[in-house]
Amino acid sequence: MKLQIAVDIADTKQILKIAEQVYGIVDIYEVGTPVIMNEGMRPVKALKKKYPDMCVFADTKIMDGGALECESVCKAGADIVTVLALSDNATVLEVVKTAHGYGRKVLADLICVKDIAKRAKELVNMGIDYIGVHTGVDMQKAGRTPLQDLEELVLAVESAKTAVAGGVKLDTIDAYTAFEPEIIIVGGALYNAENIRQTAMDMKGHIK
Amino acid sequence: MKLQIAVDIADTKQILKIAEQVYGIVDIYEVGTPVIMNEGMRPVKALKKKYPDMCVFADTKIMDGGALECESVCKAGADIVTVLALSDNATVLEVVKTAHGYGRKVLADLICVKDIAKRAKELVNMGIDYIGVHTGVDMQKAGRTPLQDLEELVLAVESAKTAVAGGVKLDTIDAYTAFEPEIIIVGGALYNAENIRQTAMDMKGHIK
Repeated sequence: MKLQIAVDIADTKQILKIAEQVYGIVDIYEVGTPVIMNEGMRPVKALKKKYPDMCVFADTKIMDGGALECESVCKAGADIVTVLALSDNATVLEVVKTAHGYGRKVLADLICVKDIAKRAKELVNMGIDYIGVHTGVDMQKAGRTPLQDLEELVLAVESAKTAVAGGVKLDTIDAYTAFEPEIIIVGGALYNAENIRQTAMDMKGHIK
Repeated sequence: MKLQIAVDIADTKQILKIAEQVYGIVDIYEVGTPVIMNEGMRPVKALKKKYPDMCVFADTKIMDGGALECESVCKAGADIVTVLALSDNATVLEVVKTAHGYGRKVLADLICVKDIAKRAKELVNMGIDYIGVHTGVDMQKAGRTPLQDLEELVLAVESAKTAVAGGVKLDTIDAYTAFEPEIIIVGGALYNAENIRQTAMDMKGHIK
């Protein structure tokens, strides 16, 4: 099981400051979509320059132009890129082919996917490395939780390919680890913590 | 009817160079998703700094975190932002609210939407300003063309709210204008032309 920090609200300087505190503790460092929208691949390049051995996850949410978009993200140094599970199969296949050509991995984000089990199996067959449960705002409002989606996902595909984001905190993390997903993604509960380093270590303590 | 240039493969320097040639001819200048993925809002800010009165379209393809992502794009100066039509309604509503708060507009990108007429009507009811037909690679391979999708769209919503991208060239543009969409989006056929300025003027000649 791996612990991933997802930083959504930050600039490159802050991204590096947070990295300093979690380096060697978290397994994967995610540069969130809003950060990429603001600064592009700059924070990814900065992280890989300072910490070449750190696994950097670029939440690119590719939806179209798979090869083109994926290539520039791989060239920037990202170790894991994301594609939307709702994309055309042609796009998914292009992203997988391009990322694997660079020796990188691809996570498919299940946001807004209705039939999780069906799409997850299709994605695995297309060579996707990880599948991430991502419960949308609307679905959460309708009473759906990431844990229900995670349960559906781990029943559909091997747990080594699963990731979960949404609602993970120090006092909820055990409910997530119970399903043994490969990657547990924590956002604000970690990077907004008063003592980021200590909180990361505490969370790691809950991860097998 | 408006003519929009969509530049997908370029850095900020090239974006500005192309802008110099089409300024005053095309109505809208699109900074494409791959450009944003590379450089974030840098090209948008550069365009608005040099041409404050030019309508700049940022193809952000927002899928989540509507308010947060939209706000930074508006602050960068984009006049039109995009949201994926497949997003949760909560996300669509947040993007609309945020963009309108800044006096900006929102285009919903129909990529991978199966029931175009149904979703287009819902999007209009949620306050979306433009709806863009975007025929995915898979669907094009299955014989679907942007023109069929455009026909379905203009039958569902008023044409003042419609946009189309995909396959527009000097010798195909009349087939698109026949449907009287509000925005006709041209990519490589314009920015890769030998004489970009002349080609833009020729295309404008086909637009009423």
